[in-house]
Amino acid sequence: MKLYETKTAPNPRRVRMFLAEKGLLDQVECVQVDLQKGENLTAEFAAKNPMKKVPVLELEDGTCIAETMAICRYFELSYPDTPKLLGDSPLEQAEIEQWLRWLDYYFFIPCGMGFQHTSGYFKDRMTPVPEWGELCIADVKKFMAFLNEHLAGKSYICCDRFTAADITAFAVAAFARVVKIRVDDSLPHLFAWYQRINERPSAAV
Amino acid sequence: MKLYETKTAPNPRRVRMFLAEKGLLDQVECVQVDLQKGENLTAEFAAKNPMKKVPVLELEDGTCIAETMAICRYFELSYPDTPKLLGDSPLEQAEIEQWLRWLDYYFFIPCGMGFQHTSGYFKDRMTPVPEWGELCIADVKKFMAFLNEHLAGKSYICCDRFTAADITAFAVAAFARVVKIRVDDSLPHLFAWYQRINERPSAAV
Ligand SMILES: N[C@@H](CCC(=O)N[C@@H](CS)C(=O)NCC(=O)O)C(=O)O
Ligand SMILES: N[C@@H](CCC(=O)N[C@@H](CS)C(=O)NCC(=O)O)C(=O)O
Repeated sequence: MKLYETKTAPNPRRVRMFLAEKGLLDQVECVQVDLQKGENLTAEFAAKNPMKKVPVLELEDGTCIAETMAICRYFELSYPDTPKLLGDSPLEQAEIEQWLRWLDYYFFIPCGMGFQHTSGYFKDRMTPVPEWGELCIADVKKFMAFLNEHLAGKSYICCDRFTAADITAFAVAAFARVVKIRVDDSLPHLFAWYQRINERPSAAV
Repeated sequence: MKLYETKTAPNPRRVRMFLAEKGLLDQVECVQVDLQKGENLTAEFAAKNPMKKVPVLELEDGTCIAETMAICRYFELSYPDTPKLLGDSPLEQAEIEQWLRWLDYYFFIPCGMGFQHTSGYFKDRMTPVPEWGELCIADVKKFMAFLNEHLAGKSYICCDRFTAADITAFAVAAFARVVKIRVDDSLPHLFAWYQRINERPSAAV
Protein backbone atom coordinates (compact mmCIF):
# COMPACT_ATOMS: atom_id res chain seq x y z
CA MET A 1 0.00 0.00 0.00
CA LYS A 2 1.10 3.57 -0.67
CA LEU A 3 0.43 6.47 1.65
CA TYR A 4 0.56 9.80 -0.15
CA GLU A 5 1.46 12.25 2.55
CA THR A 6 3.51 15.25 3.62
CA LYS A 7 5.94 14.87 6.48
CA THR A 8 5.28 18.35 7.93
CA ALA A 9 1.46 18.43 7.59
CA PRO A 10 -0.84 17.66 10.54
CA ASN A 11 -3.36 15.34 8.86
CA PRO A 12 -0.76 12.89 7.53
CA ARG A 13 0.86 13.02 10.96
CA ARG A 14 -2.37 11.69 12.48
CA VAL A 15 -2.24 8.69 10.12
CA ARG A 16 1.44 7.99 10.81
CA MET A 17 0.87 8.15 14.58
CA PHE A 18 -2.17 5.89 14.28
CA LEU A 19 -0.18 3.33 12.28
CA ALA A 20 2.81 3.53 14.63
CA GLU A 21 0.58 2.87 17.67
CA LYS A 22 -0.76 -0.22 15.90
CA GLY A 23 2.69 -1.39 14.79
CA LEU A 24 1.59 -1.08 11.15
CA LEU A 25 3.88 1.64 9.82
CA ASP A 26 5.81 -0.93 7.79
CA GLN A 27 2.63 -1.88 5.92
CA VAL A 28 2.75 1.37 3.92
CA GLU A 29 5.24 2.96 1.57
CA CYS A 30 5.16 6.70 2.28
CA VAL A 31 5.21 8.88 -0.84
CA GLN A 32 5.96 12.56 -0.16
CA VAL A 33 3.74 15.19 -1.78
CA ASP A 34 5.05 18.78 -1.75
CA LEU A 35 1.97 20.87 -0.93
CA GLN A 36 3.60 24.27 -1.22
CA LYS A 37 4.79 23.41 -4.73
CA GLY A 38 1.22 22.32 -5.49
CA GLU A 39 2.06 18.68 -6.23
CA ASN A 40 -1.39 17.87 -4.83
CA LEU A 41 -3.09 20.07 -7.44
CA THR A 42 -2.19 18.02 -10.52
CA ALA A 43 -4.74 16.01 -12.53
CA GLU A 44 -2.81 12.86 -11.60
CA PHE A 45 -3.24 13.53 -7.89
CA ALA A 46 -6.88 14.65 -8.28
CA ALA A 47 -7.59 11.23 -9.80
CA LYS A 48 -6.59 9.75 -6.43
CA ASN A 49 -8.42 12.37 -4.34
CA PRO A 50 -10.74 14.82 -6.12
CA MET A 51 -10.49 17.11 -3.04
CA LYS A 52 -6.72 17.40 -3.77
CA LYS A 53 -5.59 16.89 -0.18
CA VAL A 54 -3.22 14.57 1.64
CA PRO A 55 -3.29 11.97 3.09
CA VAL A 56 -4.47 9.39 0.53
CA LEU A 57 -4.06 5.64 0.93
CA GLU A 58 -3.67 3.65 -2.31
CA LEU A 59 -4.35 -0.07 -2.01
CA GLU A 60 -2.54 -2.71 -4.08
CA ASP A 61 -5.40 -2.81 -6.63
CA GLY A 62 -5.27 0.98 -7.10
CA THR A 63 -8.34 1.77 -4.96
CA CYS A 64 -7.80 5.06 -3.16
CA ILE A 65 -9.12 6.10 0.24
CA ALA A 66 -8.91 9.79 1.12
CA GLU A 67 -9.61 11.48 4.46
CA THR A 68 -7.55 10.86 7.57
CA MET A 69 -10.30 9.23 9.60
CA ALA A 70 -11.42 6.99 6.71
CA ILE A 71 -7.83 5.75 6.37
CA CYS A 72 -7.55 5.19 10.13
CA ARG A 73 -10.86 3.33 10.20
CA TYR A 74 -9.71 1.11 7.32
CA PHE A 75 -6.67 0.03 9.36
CA GLU A 76 -8.67 -0.31 12.58
CA LEU A 77 -11.08 -2.73 10.89
CA SER A 78 -8.57 -4.56 8.68
CA TYR A 79 -6.19 -5.39 11.53
CA PRO A 80 -8.51 -6.35 14.40
CA ASP A 81 -5.64 -7.81 16.48
CA THR A 82 -3.88 -4.46 16.85
CA PRO A 83 -4.64 -2.00 19.72
CA LYS A 84 -8.13 -0.55 19.24
CA LEU A 85 -7.81 3.22 18.92
CA LEU A 86 -11.43 3.90 17.90
CA GLY A 87 -12.99 2.12 20.86
CA ASP A 88 -14.64 -1.17 21.73
CA SER A 89 -18.26 -1.09 22.97
CA PRO A 90 -20.87 0.99 21.10
CA LEU A 91 -20.74 3.63 23.85
CA GLU A 92 -16.94 3.83 23.73
CA GLN A 93 -16.90 4.10 19.95
CA ALA A 94 -19.54 6.84 20.17
CA GLU A 95 -17.58 8.71 22.85
CA ILE A 96 -14.41 8.64 20.75
CA GLU A 97 -16.31 9.71 17.64
CA GLN A 98 -17.82 12.61 19.61
CA TRP A 99 -14.36 13.75 20.67
CA LEU A 100 -12.88 13.29 17.20
CA ARG A 101 -15.65 15.48 15.81
CA TRP A 102 -15.31 18.12 18.52
CA LEU A 103 -11.55 18.22 17.94
CA ASP A 104 -12.00 18.51 14.17
CA TYR A 105 -14.73 21.16 14.19
CA TYR A 106 -13.71 23.32 17.13
CA PHE A 107 -9.90 22.92 17.23
CA PHE A 108 -8.39 21.62 13.98
CA ILE A 109 -10.51 23.49 11.43
CA PRO A 110 -10.21 26.87 13.22
CA CYS A 111 -6.47 26.29 13.57
CA GLY A 112 -6.06 25.46 9.87
CA MET A 113 -8.23 28.38 8.80
CA GLY A 114 -6.51 30.73 11.23
CA PHE A 115 -3.22 29.77 9.60
CA GLN A 116 -4.36 29.94 5.97
CA HIS A 117 -6.30 33.19 6.36
CA THR A 118 -3.65 35.14 8.28
CA SER A 119 -0.46 33.80 6.66
CA GLY A 120 -1.46 33.64 3.00
CA TYR A 121 0.41 30.30 2.81
CA PHE A 122 -2.00 28.91 0.19
CA LYS A 123 -2.95 32.21 -1.43
CA ASP A 124 -2.21 30.70 -4.85
CA ARG A 125 -5.31 28.49 -4.38
CA MET A 126 -7.67 30.34 -1.98
CA THR A 127 -8.61 33.88 -0.96
CA PRO A 128 -7.40 34.74 2.54
CA VAL A 129 -9.79 36.77 4.70
CA PRO A 130 -7.56 37.95 7.59
CA GLU A 131 -10.49 39.12 9.76
CA TRP A 132 -11.94 35.60 9.58
CA GLY A 133 -8.54 34.09 10.34
CA GLU A 134 -8.23 36.16 13.53
CA LEU A 135 -11.68 35.05 14.74
CA CYS A 136 -10.64 31.44 14.13
CA ILE A 137 -7.45 31.87 16.17
CA ALA A 138 -9.52 33.26 19.07
CA ASP A 139 -11.70 30.11 18.84
CA VAL A 140 -8.59 27.90 19.01
CA LYS A 141 -7.60 29.61 22.26
CA LYS A 142 -11.10 29.14 23.69
CA PHE A 143 -11.08 25.45 22.81
CA MET A 144 -7.66 24.97 24.40
CA ALA A 145 -8.94 26.50 27.65
CA PHE A 146 -11.90 24.07 27.53
CA LEU A 147 -9.56 21.14 26.87
CA ASN A 148 -7.32 22.22 29.75
CA GLU A 149 -10.26 22.13 32.18
CA HIS A 150 -11.47 18.84 30.76
CA LEU A 151 -8.06 17.24 31.31
CA ALA A 152 -7.84 18.15 35.02
CA GLY A 153 -7.29 14.84 36.80
CA LYS A 154 -7.28 12.87 33.53
CA SER A 155 -4.40 11.17 31.73
CA TYR A 156 -6.15 10.92 28.35
CA ILE A 157 -8.92 12.72 26.49
CA CYS A 158 -11.54 10.00 26.89
CA CYS A 159 -12.22 6.35 27.78
CA ASP A 160 -9.41 6.44 30.43
CA ARG A 161 -6.84 5.33 27.90
CA PHE A 162 -4.91 6.42 24.82
CA THR A 163 -7.20 6.64 21.77
CA ALA A 164 -7.38 8.30 18.35
CA ALA A 165 -8.78 11.38 20.15
CA ASP A 166 -5.38 11.88 21.79
CA ILE A 167 -3.71 11.59 18.39
CA THR A 168 -5.87 14.28 16.82
CA ALA A 169 -5.62 16.61 19.82
CA PHE A 170 -1.85 16.17 19.93
CA ALA A 171 -1.32 16.74 16.20
CA VAL A 172 -3.39 19.93 16.32
CA ALA A 173 -1.80 21.20 19.56
CA ALA A 174 1.64 20.80 17.96
CA PHE A 175 0.47 22.38 14.68
CA ALA A 176 -0.92 25.41 16.56
CA ARG A 177 2.57 26.93 16.61
CA VAL A 178 1.82 28.08 13.01
CA VAL A 179 -0.65 30.54 14.55
CA LYS A 180 1.86 31.38 17.30
CA ILE A 181 0.11 29.32 19.97
CA ARG A 182 2.27 27.05 22.09
CA VAL A 183 1.07 24.66 24.76
CA ASP A 184 2.78 25.76 27.97
CA ASP A 185 2.23 25.87 31.74
CA SER A 186 -0.37 28.63 31.46
CA LEU A 187 -2.71 25.67 30.73
CA PRO A 188 -1.19 23.16 33.17
CA HIS A 189 -3.48 20.15 32.59
CA LEU A 190 -3.20 20.46 28.82
CA PHE A 191 0.57 20.93 29.17
CA ALA A 192 0.97 17.79 31.32
CA TRP A 193 -1.14 15.77 28.87
CA TYR A 194 0.84 17.17 25.91
CA GLN A 195 4.13 16.11 27.48
CA ARG A 196 2.67 12.68 28.28
CA ILE A 197 1.68 12.08 24.63
CA ASN A 198 4.90 13.61 23.34
CA GLU A 199 6.87 10.89 25.14
CA ARG A 200 5.21 8.12 23.14
CA PRO A 201 7.43 6.75 20.36
CA SER A 202 4.56 7.38 17.89
CA ALA A 203 4.90 11.14 18.46
CA ALA A 204 8.28 11.08 16.70
CA VAL A 205 7.30 9.30 13.45
CA MET B 1 -33.60 7.83 25.48
CA LYS B 2 -34.05 11.54 24.78
CA LEU B 3 -32.95 13.23 21.58
CA TYR B 4 -32.45 16.98 22.05
CA GLU B 5 -33.00 18.39 18.61
CA THR B 6 -34.54 21.09 16.46
CA LYS B 7 -37.09 20.15 13.86
CA THR B 8 -35.89 22.68 11.26
CA ALA B 9 -32.11 22.22 11.67
CA PRO B 10 -30.07 20.04 9.27
CA ASN B 11 -27.92 18.09 11.78
CA PRO B 12 -30.86 16.77 13.82
CA ARG B 13 -32.54 15.93 10.52
CA ARG B 14 -29.64 13.59 9.70
CA VAL B 15 -30.21 11.74 12.97
CA ARG B 16 -33.98 11.48 12.47
CA MET B 17 -33.52 10.16 8.92
CA PHE B 18 -30.91 7.67 10.12
CA LEU B 19 -33.25 6.40 12.85
CA ALA B 20 -36.22 6.24 10.48
CA GLU B 21 -34.24 4.16 7.97
CA LYS B 22 -33.40 1.74 10.78
CA GLY B 23 -36.96 1.67 12.12
CA LEU B 24 -35.69 3.07 15.43
CA LEU B 25 -37.45 6.44 15.62
CA ASP B 26 -39.73 5.15 18.36
CA GLN B 27 -36.70 4.42 20.57
CA VAL B 28 -36.19 8.14 21.25
CA GLU B 29 -38.29 10.87 22.76
CA CYS B 30 -37.60 14.04 20.75
CA VAL B 31 -37.18 17.17 22.87
CA GLN B 32 -37.29 20.42 20.88
CA VAL B 33 -34.59 23.04 21.50
CA ASP B 34 -35.27 26.55 20.13
CA LEU B 35 -31.91 27.64 18.72
CA GLN B 36 -32.92 31.14 17.71
CA LYS B 37 -34.14 31.83 21.24
CA GLY B 38 -30.78 30.49 22.46
CA GLU B 39 -32.20 27.57 24.45
CA ASN B 40 -28.97 25.72 23.54
CA LEU B 41 -26.83 28.39 25.22
CA THR B 42 -27.99 27.79 28.82
CA ALA B 43 -25.77 26.24 31.51
CA GLU B 44 -28.23 23.35 31.73
CA PHE B 45 -27.81 22.54 28.03
CA ALA B 46 -24.03 23.09 28.11
CA ALA B 47 -23.85 20.38 30.79
CA LYS B 48 -25.22 17.98 28.14
CA ASN B 49 -23.03 19.30 25.31
CA PRO B 50 -20.27 21.80 26.15
CA MET B 51 -20.22 22.81 22.46
CA LYS B 52 -23.86 23.99 22.91
CA LYS B 53 -25.17 22.40 19.71
CA VAL B 54 -27.96 20.04 18.77
CA PRO B 55 -28.40 17.11 18.36
CA VAL B 56 -27.60 15.48 21.72
CA LEU B 57 -28.67 11.97 22.71
CA GLU B 58 -29.27 11.39 26.42
CA LEU B 59 -29.27 7.75 27.53
CA GLU B 60 -31.44 6.40 30.36
CA ASP B 61 -28.55 6.74 32.85
CA GLY B 62 -28.00 10.40 31.91
CA THR B 63 -24.92 9.82 29.74
CA CYS B 64 -24.94 12.28 26.84
CA ILE B 65 -23.57 11.77 23.34
CA ALA B 66 -23.17 14.86 21.18
CA GLU B 67 -22.30 15.07 17.46
CA THR B 68 -24.53 13.74 14.73
CA MET B 69 -22.16 11.03 13.53
CA ALA B 70 -21.37 9.84 17.07
CA ILE B 71 -25.10 9.44 17.72
CA CYS B 72 -25.60 7.62 14.41
CA ARG B 73 -22.65 5.32 15.12
CA TYR B 74 -24.07 4.53 18.57
CA PHE B 75 -27.32 3.32 16.98
CA GLU B 76 -25.51 1.48 14.15
CA LEU B 77 -23.50 -0.53 16.68
CA SER B 78 -26.22 -0.96 19.33
CA TYR B 79 -28.80 -2.36 16.89
CA PRO B 80 -26.78 -4.68 14.63
CA ASP B 81 -29.93 -6.26 13.15
CA THR B 82 -31.10 -3.02 11.52
CA PRO B 83 -30.01 -1.95 8.00
CA LYS B 84 -26.29 -1.05 8.04
CA LEU B 85 -25.96 2.57 6.92
CA LEU B 86 -22.25 2.95 7.77
CA GLY B 87 -21.11 -0.04 5.70
CA ASP B 88 -20.08 -3.63 6.15
CA SER B 89 -16.54 -4.63 5.09
CA PRO B 90 -13.56 -2.50 6.16
CA LEU B 91 -13.33 -1.07 2.63
CA GLU B 92 -17.03 -0.18 2.54
CA GLN B 93 -16.89 1.44 5.96
CA ALA B 94 -13.82 3.42 4.86
CA GLU B 95 -15.51 4.49 1.62
CA ILE B 96 -18.59 5.74 3.49
CA GLU B 97 -16.42 7.53 6.07
CA GLN B 98 -14.50 9.20 3.23
CA TRP B 99 -17.75 10.47 1.71
CA LEU B 100 -19.16 11.56 5.06
CA ARG B 101 -16.02 13.57 5.67
CA TRP B 102 -16.00 15.09 2.15
CA LEU B 103 -19.65 16.03 2.55
CA ASP B 104 -19.05 17.58 5.96
CA TYR B 105 -15.90 19.54 5.07
CA TYR B 106 -16.63 20.63 1.52
CA PHE B 107 -20.45 20.87 1.45
CA PHE B 108 -22.05 21.13 4.90
CA ILE B 109 -19.56 23.40 6.67
CA PRO B 110 -19.33 25.89 3.75
CA CYS B 111 -23.13 25.88 3.52
CA GLY B 112 -23.57 26.53 7.25
CA MET B 113 -20.89 29.22 7.26
CA GLY B 114 -22.25 30.80 4.10
CA PHE B 115 -25.60 31.08 5.85
CA GLN B 116 -24.33 32.34 9.20
CA HIS B 117 -21.87 34.84 7.73
CA THR B 118 -24.21 36.39 5.14
CA SER B 119 -27.53 36.32 7.05
CA GLY B 120 -26.44 37.31 10.55
CA TYR B 121 -28.85 34.64 11.85
CA PHE B 122 -26.64 33.90 14.89
CA LYS B 123 -25.08 37.36 15.24
CA ASP B 124 -25.97 37.33 18.95
CA ARG B 125 -23.30 34.60 19.40
CA MET B 126 -20.75 35.02 16.58
CA THR B 127 -19.24 37.74 14.38
CA PRO B 128 -20.41 37.47 10.76
CA VAL B 129 -17.75 38.13 8.09
CA PRO B 130 -19.84 38.54 4.91
CA GLU B 131 -16.83 38.32 2.54
CA TRP B 132 -16.00 34.92 4.03
CA GLY B 133 -19.64 33.85 3.77
CA GLU B 134 -19.69 34.63 0.04
CA LEU B 135 -16.52 32.60 -0.57
CA CYS B 136 -18.15 29.68 1.27
CA ILE B 137 -21.29 29.89 -0.89
CA ALA B 138 -19.10 29.74 -4.02
CA ASP B 139 -17.50 26.56 -2.60
CA VAL B 140 -20.94 25.03 -2.06
CA LYS B 141 -21.73 25.57 -5.74
CA LYS B 142 -18.42 24.01 -6.79
CA PHE B 143 -19.03 20.96 -4.64
CA MET B 144 -22.53 20.53 -6.06
CA ALA B 145 -21.12 20.53 -9.58
CA PHE B 146 -18.62 17.84 -8.50
CA LEU B 147 -21.41 15.80 -6.90
CA ASN B 148 -23.53 16.13 -10.04
CA GLU B 149 -20.74 14.66 -12.17
CA HIS B 150 -20.05 11.95 -9.63
CA LEU B 151 -23.71 10.88 -9.67
CA ALA B 152 -23.90 10.41 -13.47
CA GLY B 153 -25.07 6.82 -13.93
CA LYS B 154 -25.31 6.21 -10.18
CA SER B 155 -28.37 5.81 -7.97
CA TYR B 156 -26.57 6.49 -4.68
CA ILE B 157 -23.47 8.35 -3.52
CA CYS B 158 -21.39 5.25 -2.81
CA CYS B 159 -21.38 1.47 -2.30
CA ASP B 160 -24.20 1.07 -4.89
CA ARG B 161 -26.85 1.43 -2.21
CA PHE B 162 -28.46 3.87 0.19
CA THR B 163 -26.07 4.79 3.03
CA ALA B 164 -25.49 7.51 5.62
CA ALA B 165 -23.65 9.43 2.88
CA ASP B 166 -26.97 9.89 1.05
CA ILE B 167 -28.54 11.13 4.28
CA THR B 168 -25.89 13.81 4.83
CA ALA B 169 -25.84 14.89 1.19
CA PHE B 170 -29.63 15.09 1.12
CA ALA B 171 -29.93 17.06 4.37
CA VAL B 172 -27.35 19.58 3.15
CA ALA B 173 -28.80 19.84 -0.36
CA ALA B 174 -32.21 20.65 1.17
CA PHE B 175 -30.68 23.09 3.68
CA ALA B 176 -28.84 24.95 0.87
CA ARG B 177 -32.03 26.93 0.18
CA VAL B 178 -30.97 29.15 3.11
CA VAL B 179 -28.15 30.43 0.88
CA LYS B 180 -30.58 30.62 -2.07
CA ILE B 181 -29.29 27.46 -3.76
CA ARG B 182 -31.88 24.98 -4.97
CA VAL B 183 -31.21 21.62 -6.56
CA ASP B 184 -32.80 21.75 -10.00
CA ASP B 185 -32.37 20.39 -13.52
CA SER B 186 -29.33 22.58 -14.19
CA LEU B 187 -27.51 19.73 -12.36
CA PRO B 188 -29.53 16.81 -13.77
CA HIS B 189 -27.77 13.86 -12.06
CA LEU B 190 -27.86 15.56 -8.67
CA PHE B 191 -31.50 16.51 -9.29
CA ALA B 192 -32.51 12.92 -10.16
CA TRP B 193 -30.69 11.61 -7.08
CA TYR B 194 -32.30 14.30 -4.90
CA GLN B 195 -35.77 13.33 -6.09
CA ARG B 196 -34.97 9.64 -5.54
CA ILE B 197 -33.96 10.25 -1.90
CA ASN B 198 -36.83 12.68 -1.35
CA GLU B 199 -39.30 9.87 -2.11
CA ARG B 200 -38.09 7.77 0.82
CA PRO B 201 -40.41 7.92 3.84
CA SER B 202 -37.40 8.90 5.99
CA ALA B 203 -37.11 12.19 4.09
CA ALA B 204 -40.38 13.34 5.64
CA VAL B 205 -39.61 12.75 9.34
N1 LIG C 1 -10.37 16.48 5.93
C1 LIG C 1 -9.10 16.11 5.36
C2 LIG C 1 -8.21 17.31 5.34
C3 LIG C 1 -6.98 17.08 4.54
C4 LIG C 1 -6.14 18.36 4.41
O1 LIG C 1 -6.67 19.49 4.49
N2 LIG C 1 -4.83 18.15 4.20
C5 LIG C 1 -3.93 19.28 4.05
C6 LIG C 1 -2.59 18.95 4.73
S1 LIG C 1 -2.77 18.73 6.49
C7 LIG C 1 -3.67 19.51 2.57
O2 LIG C 1 -3.58 18.55 1.79
N3 LIG C 1 -3.56 20.79 2.13
C8 LIG C 1 -3.20 21.11 0.80
C9 LIG C 1 -4.10 22.12 0.15
O3 LIG C 1 -5.09 22.55 0.80
O4 LIG C 1 -3.83 22.48 -1.02
C10 LIG C 1 -8.49 14.95 6.16
O5 LIG C 1 -8.86 14.76 7.33
O6 LIG C 1 -7.67 14.19 5.61
N1 LIG D 1 -20.74 19.00 14.33
C1 LIG D 1 -22.04 19.07 14.96
C2 LIG D 1 -22.71 20.33 14.50
C3 LIG D 1 -23.93 20.64 15.30
C4 LIG D 1 -24.52 22.00 14.92
O1 LIG D 1 -23.83 22.91 14.44
N2 LIG D 1 -25.85 22.11 15.15
C5 LIG D 1 -26.54 23.35 14.86
C6 LIG D 1 -27.94 23.03 14.30
S1 LIG D 1 -27.85 22.17 12.74
C7 LIG D 1 -26.70 24.15 16.15
O2 LIG D 1 -26.94 23.57 17.21
N3 LIG D 1 -26.58 25.49 16.08
C8 LIG D 1 -26.83 26.34 17.19
C9 LIG D 1 -25.74 27.34 17.47
O3 LIG D 1 -24.72 27.34 16.73
O4 LIG D 1 -25.91 28.15 18.41
C10 LIG D 1 -22.87 17.83 14.62
O5 LIG D 1 -22.56 17.19 13.59
O6 LIG D 1 -23.78 17.48 15.37
